[in-house]
Amino acid sequence: MLELFDQIGVFVFAISGMLTAADRNLDLLGGYIIAFITALGGGTVRDLLLNVDIAWMSSLSHVVIVIVAGTLGVLFRKRLKSFRRTFFIFDTIGIAIFTIVGVQKGLDHGQIALTAIFLGMISATFGGLLRDVLCNEIPLIFRKEIYAIPCLVGGSIYLGGYFLFGLDDHTWLLWISILFIIAFRTLAVIFSWKLPLIRELNS
Amino acid sequence: MLELFDQIGVFVFAISGMLTAADRNLDLLGGYIIAFITALGGGTVRDLLLNVDIAWMSSLSHVVIVIVAGTLGVLFRKRLKSFRRTFFIFDTIGIAIFTIVGVQKGLDHGQIALTAIFLGMISATFGGLLRDVLCNEIPLIFRKEIYAIPCLVGGSIYLGGYFLFGLDDHTWLLWISILFIIAFRTLAVIFSWKLPLIRELNS
Amino acid sequence: MLELFDQIGVFVFAISGMLTAADRNLDLLGGYIIAFITALGGGTVRDLLLNVDIAWMSSLSHVVIVIVAGTLGVLFRKRLKSFRRTFFIFDTIGIAIFTIVGVQKGLDHGQIALTAIFLGMISATFGGLLRDVLCNEIPLIFRKEIYAIPCLVGGSIYLGGYFLFGLDDHTWLLWISILFIIAFRTLAVIFSWKLPLIRELNS
Repeated sequence: MLELFDQIGVFVFAISGMLTAADRNLDLLGGYIIAFITALGGGTVRDLLLNVDIAWMSSLSHVVIVIVAGTLGVLFRKRLKSFRRTFFIFDTIGIAIFTIVGVQKGLDHGQIALTAIFLGMISATFGGLLRDVLCNEIPLIFRKEIYAIPCLVGGSIYLGGYFLFGLDDHTWLLWISILFIIAFRTLAVIFSWKLPLIRELNS
Repeated sequence: MLELFDQIGVFVFAISGMLTAADRNLDLLGGYIIAFITALGGGTVRDLLLNVDIAWMSSLSHVVIVIVAGTLGVLFRKRLKSFRRTFFIFDTIGIAIFTIVGVQKGLDHGQIALTAIFLGMISATFGGLLRDVLCNEIPLIFRKEIYAIPCLVGGSIYLGGYFLFGLDDHTWLLWISILFIIAFRTLAVIFSWKLPLIRELNS
Repeated sequence: MLELFDQIGVFVFAISGMLTAADRNLDLLGGYIIAFITALGGGTVRDLLLNVDIAWMSSLSHVVIVIVAGTLGVLFRKRLKSFRRTFFIFDTIGIAIFTIVGVQKGLDHGQIALTAIFLGMISATFGGLLRDVLCNEIPLIFRKEIYAIPCLVGGSIYLGGYFLFGLDDHTWLLWISILFIIAFRTLAVIFSWKLPLIRELNS
């Protein structure tokens, strides 16, 4: 189940990466590279930190999914773009899935709870962070609306449920946590929830 | 002893990171992320290169120190800021400690002397380098006064003493090397010591 | 043979890095750091992904080559600069060699063919990519003429030949693949071959 979710996350992040690359006027190979890094960069950093084999290196499936999704991104770019929300939806589904996949992978490799939650956030956000750094922009995660908070809270919910209800058959827990993150981020954008700036505190 | 020094280094770098994030007008979570990366990024790169477990992942203490130090940075920001020197002092203590911790960790894992010195410099400077890259600035290390030279020289002194005087009880060597780096960098800033620009050589 | 080629690649990339650093008006240590990262950054990322020992850490030779090449870059900077082509030639020889070294190293560690080709491209291009990110520019690889395509095609030729003609004594295959990449990139620059922009497709 997690494997399938992971592949869906790769798919939506690759489309999101290709659309971003088109926005920044890159050429076709640049688009595929950005799609690749956006989709697989967060998981790569997670696997490097865990000191385990990088997931995409031993499987054709991840790379094929990036190529297919990137190509669909090129072909249906105008249709996808005409709804500004499409981009947001892909990105939100992606961070929700990658957060939970990352937390679970941390647990699978015996990390402590707090580190597992951080690995979830890193899986979800570092692909986009690398994309922004490579495109010479201040990463989105530092600039705008609440972005990483839903990952941290959703990851904690998953982790709490995981320890409370045991290790077997927790597909429903997957769904609840992922839908929670999607709902949280969507509400955050609709209602413009923001964290206070550091300067506003104790000013 | 080294462990305690390492935790002090994490503490001062996390404050330095939070103050920088406030300067760049980030929100609270952005501040904690920058504090985390400034404090633990150099050690993370060092541990990745050494192919050993990342220090902060298996211990709550590092993360707790970042959160406590970051919070103190928020609370006492104005008082800390009113002395421009405070920032400089924290940063200088941090690079001095991290250099020696990095050299020692390199030696502990059987690296050759030159690589151990490089690992010291990487431990000391890459947290700040990642912070600057993420904030979309040319890293400080490339822009201003002598920054990495004291790390290289101080690391070499530590390494020389370590091989000359043997492996046991070298707390005094720790102190001498750390104080040397602090003194070197402080003098470099006071007297505006600079390296020549490449263009000035052979011009 | 591959070892020698690798060292030539490090040599030319270190010169290319020092010349770039001079262009960006860095000081001498900054120049050596950029030379180091340009020459050894791609291989470092490759080795991190492969989860093997980082090549330069256990050998003095790589570091010595960077220092010697960087110093030559400083001394003969004006003579090298007066031919704009020199820079291009060094860079092109470097990416050609590193591509094949990277593909071979991927095969040596049992990676699948596609991943081996990607590792070749990463070896060849990530040093320059890190250099550009650190100098706060959009990486060259995303901006200009065909850059990574010759690596992908040349790596595929090497891989095809490797599997077709067996594993022993393939020095001639090395030469053919490397010369192919150099020729491809040179022709691409002479004739201004470009990939289409994403926006031009399906517009």
